Amino acid sequence: MPEPATKRILSGVQPSGKLHLGNYFGAIRQHIALQEQGDAFYFIADYHALTTLKEAEAREADAAQKAGKTTWKSAREILAENVRDVALDYLALGLDPDRATFYRQSDVPEVTELTWILSTVTGMGLLERATSYKDKVSKGITPTVGLFTYPVLMAADILIVRSNLVPVGKDQVQHLEMTRDMAGYFNQAYDDVFPEPREMLGDAPTVPGTDGQKMSKSYGNTIEIFAEGKALKTAVMGVVTDSTPLEEPKNPETCNVFALYKLFATAGEAAQLAEQYRNPMLNADARKGRAFGYGDAKQLLLAKIDARFGPARERRKQLAADPVTVEDVLRAGARKARAEARKTLALVRQAVGMAAAPAE
Amino acid sequence: MPEPATKRILSGVQPSGKLHLGNYFGAIRQHIALQEQGDAFYFIADYHALTTLKEAEAREADAAQKAGKTTWKSAREILAENVRDVALDYLALGLDPDRATFYRQSDVPEVTELTWILSTVTGMGLLERATSYKDKVSKGITPTVGLFTYPVLMAADILIVRSNLVPVGKDQVQHLEMTRDMAGYFNQAYDDVFPEPREMLGDAPTVPGTDGQKMSKSYGNTIEIFAEGKALKTAVMGVVTDSTPLEEPKNPETCNVFALYKLFATAGEAAQLAEQYRNPMLNADARKGRAFGYGDAKQLLLAKIDARFGPARERRKQLAADPVTVEDVLRAGARKARAEARKTLALVRQAVGMAAAPAE
Repeated sequence: MPEPATKRILSGVQPSGKLHLGNYFGAIRQHIALQEQGDAFYFIADYHALTTLKEAEAREADAAQKAGKTTWKSAREILAENVRDVALDYLALGLDPDRATFYRQSDVPEVTELTWILSTVTGMGLLERATSYKDKVSKGITPTVGLFTYPVLMAADILIVRSNLVPVGKDQVQHLEMTRDMAGYFNQAYDDVFPEPREMLGDAPTVPGTDGQKMSKSYGNTIEIFAEGKALKTAVMGVVTDSTPLEEPKNPETCNVFALYKLFATAGEAAQLAEQYRNPMLNADARKGRAFGYGDAKQLLLAKIDARFGPARERRKQLAADPVTVEDVLRAGARKARAEARKTLALVRQAVGMAAAPAE
Repeated sequence: MPEPATKRILSGVQPSGKLHLGNYFGAIRQHIALQEQGDAFYFIADYHALTTLKEAEAREADAAQKAGKTTWKSAREILAENVRDVALDYLALGLDPDRATFYRQSDVPEVTELTWILSTVTGMGLLERATSYKDKVSKGITPTVGLFTYPVLMAADILIVRSNLVPVGKDQVQHLEMTRDMAGYFNQAYDDVFPEPREMLGDAPTVPGTDGQKMSKSYGNTIEIFAEGKALKTAVMGVVTDSTPLEEPKNPETCNVFALYKLFATAGEAAQLAEQYRNPMLNADARKGRAFGYGDAKQLLLAKIDARFGPARERRKQLAADPVTVEDVLRAGARKARAEARKTLALVRQAVGMAAAPAE
């Protein structure tokens, strides 16, 4: 199959709850930017989410019980809500369904058929070497067959639309290598069907959480993208700072507030704030003569967050009020992805000697 | 979901080449009989066949090279031909598509979706305890992920049409236990979707091969069901017997020819032949005074085989000349199986919180 002139870019998004600034600067921003540069396919990875859904349910139950509640969300409600949320989030943040193909993974069930077929050409040794499985198990996730074979489903996600480029974080580079291996195994065993996809390692900045560790839901240190008003303010004001007295010079390089501010600011704005950190009495007139403290820096960060995400929050509310439109977007994306998936599967089935896929 | 009044019976048939008497008396005969007794679903397991297809290709290459040939069948040709053969064989032997639902597994790709979902509720320990995986690997089959997760696909085959009864050999009982385990895991994790299928252990007789070992393609000791004329005669005349001289009494109980004859004969006919073994000069007139030897017994066996399978051979030739009809039968079976599969998957998707399956 000849390579198309435009590179196909694919990425999956885990529907794992409220998105935070770490997700935004780590992946979403890049996804939105890439839709201008290639033929982008983004999917909500609900089949993958099943590998950790029972753990999510247990966390819900745990949190609810600690809060003295007697009911909590079931696994089914969590998955449905998380999928809906991530769809709203991406569309609100600028994913343009006229440019990018945006779909739910489970709306393209062909991917599970390719998963099976790839599994028959993939040696056990390859999966046994996967570090992410071991990591997840060591974190207490139940070692299911799905958790173990996750890299095969991921390879099928990528290969079924014959993607060329996959934006990933460093922790996913091994999975891309495994995907190339599986593509090669199939091509060698049967016929030259799959291109070898390459990873795109973005220059994602480190995003500190409110406690200074990497921002991550599992650390409970996130600032949510779509938080606003009091909830957002509470999160931002809770960012941990050192105990330098108000009047003394502060070090921007070691300050979590400054690190977060830099993500939103221009270079000039960041330099200005750094200067202000070092000279707390600079522009003191604007503060009625008071020195510049961390509270002031947090206010600046808050304003930046509001400015960046304010319009997206409004769009998100509009979209949330219009579930039919959102569903239509996802179904239209799935139709496009499915047409590609079926082309690939037709080649795969022919290569292994299977009859053409059944008519619908 | 209420249990239907008629029990649903399901069995998969491996498309692994020419069927032999061992297959007939071990499974096919029972399958044909069961179509009168329940709502039978029989499928040609082509997804499963992919786990050993490369080995089949290697055997072809090996045999061809030993025979001095420079070309041989590719994996793709082997799978396509074996699937076609098993469809013809079953239809010729009396599978009635108006009674039984007969389909190619890959015409119901929903089964791979259920395979993924079941894999996310199945602990690795369950598969690690499977003895058939270890057996296959010890026989030299490549330990692929598909070979390892084979029992999950098998469970999905059974559960996706909510089967109640599965006719299996003793070597498959563990797989049925695993299927019940997986059904239970899912029901417990999400919702009560799956009935627990039971195995039907038939009273399949032991069928000796031409060398006296169990008849099996891997021992090269088979008598094919659809062999005829010279090929069949050669196979039957090749059945190993002991060196008892012609005139002496022979022991039917230890004779492979007698064991095979018994499979086809009435009790009276078998008793008569046993008597003849013990008294070689009985009815010697019909042999111009000659004593009864193993060659005579082989002629009787050959006549029985011809009588049993002669009509099926004719039907098979007619069907082979009419591939459109055969394809229509399989597609019609798949439509029926697929409708059942979709009903089940709708319940499954709802239970885990996924959107309804995409419209076609």
